[in-house]
Amino acid sequence: MALQNLRVVLVRPKRSGNIGAAARAMANMGVGDLALVAPPHALNRFHAGVMAVHARHVLERMRVYSTLAQSVADCGLVVGATCRRGPYRDGSRPLRDAAREVVEMVAANRVALVFGPEDHGLANDDLRVCHRLVTIPADSRYPSLNVAQAVLLCCYEIFLAAGAAADGGGGQAQERPLASSGAVELMYEKLRDAFLSVGFLHADNPEHIMFALRRIFGRSGLEERDVRILLGLARQIRWYADSGWKLRAEASAASETSGCGCSPGR
Amino acid sequence: MALQNLRVVLVRPKRSGNIGAAARAMANMGVGDLALVAPPHALNRFHAGVMAVHARHVLERMRVYSTLAQSVADCGLVVGATCRRGPYRDGSRPLRDAAREVVEMVAANRVALVFGPEDHGLANDDLRVCHRLVTIPADSRYPSLNVAQAVLLCCYEIFLAAGAAADGGGGQAQERPLASSGAVELMYEKLRDAFLSVGFLHADNPEHIMFALRRIFGRSGLEERDVRILLGLARQIRWYADSGWKLRAEASAASETSGCGCSPGR
Repeated sequence: MALQNLRVVLVRPKRSGNIGAAARAMANMGVGDLALVAPPHALNRFHAGVMAVHARHVLERMRVYSTLAQSVADCGLVVGATCRRGPYRDGSRPLRDAAREVVEMVAANRVALVFGPEDHGLANDDLRVCHRLVTIPADSRYPSLNVAQAVLLCCYEIFLAAGAAADGGGGQAQERPLASSGAVELMYEKLRDAFLSVGFLHADNPEHIMFALRRIFGRSGLEERDVRILLGLARQIRWYADSGWKLRAEASAASETSGCGCSPGR
Repeated sequence: MALQNLRVVLVRPKRSGNIGAAARAMANMGVGDLALVAPPHALNRFHAGVMAVHARHVLERMRVYSTLAQSVADCGLVVGATCRRGPYRDGSRPLRDAAREVVEMVAANRVALVFGPEDHGLANDDLRVCHRLVTIPADSRYPSLNVAQAVLLCCYEIFLAAGAAADGGGGQAQERPLASSGAVELMYEKLRDAFLSVGFLHADNPEHIMFALRRIFGRSGLEERDVRILLGLARQIRWYADSGWKLRAEASAASETSGCGCSPGR
């Protein structure tokens, strides 16, 4: 089954019962890889097991991480589930469309579905790590789903889309290996440094524009060679900026030794 | 909302928490009419309310019946949910097909969705009352869903089918207006100029790397504000490069005229 490359990540889950219910929902839809990020210290494995019923094997395989970035470091595609609107949540796609894309990617890539804590969903820092956002359609008067219910709907749509793809009805599942989340994060660091060095980003809030760029590249789905090109851009801008500083420093040294106190440029 | 004619019927539910979780799932999908058939005597309304969270109004409106037949007496269509195969379960339809039919019916009819108890699902006597059966697709190794999860999936599919029907059958295509091709081409020109000016592109073949960037942004699908951000990047890099050239020119002019050739400020 192709869904062995699909990972469900619960970020800072609060209730052990929800973890078990999510494990059951995953098993119902043929998904077995569960990761927790910063779960409660008092994780009640008994209660989780009661809710998992016949999906305890999912709980036994479950891994625990301290950060979201670590939990998805080996993933080519990281999809964050959200039901809220707000800053940094634009460009979110409806679940059914996103499920088709996940199925296209999951044959050749590890794909993570990321869910936030029960009360507030994913925080802006979590969203930064996500390449795509998906919105679960729901009634606007009460759009906030229980986290295990959200896990179920996402896994269900992907399970169905995978079946449609296997039947030949779901379009051509394309083998397009994506860059790992770890490599992409490193690239964003280098781009941020480069853009800061030429004044494109403001030092007091570089993340605002970086969010927008993450969204653009996230929608695109970066392959390894794309990352190499963008790293090359970052390196060249950085080199250019550094050599500019050297020139400025030389110019200012020259003006100091020349006996003339006027400063060329700034 | 057309789904006011839709009723969820839980037959002999065992756990109060599941009743609350089902109420929440219904409210998430715009369904408000919940009926219980022969619930436990020790129905724990507090625990049900905890799981319902903001869907307590569904619990308050909930009615209790002693038989399934009574609970659906005013319904034109009664649909039983099952995940098992077996006698009396032939002719069961996949959920997504059934959801379309429910939407066709629910404008002019009261429609009941019937779910069995947690452990064994609907009994043969219950199935007799149902006009149709629906099967929720699930992994064959563990097809048995929690009852609230089953309620959620059925309501979700009907909610989406109702939205698609209201949209004229086109599915819920998201309105995401993209930037015009003209604006995007202008942006590529400015990016090429900027990247040439810092030496990221080679003057003899700038299009090679630009092709790769076009592919990345093309996959992404640029919106107008994405184009504005990337234009801003091009402008800033260009400005930075130009101010670097000015510095170089000033430095070289200074070295040619020996005494003090530096210009104070610009």
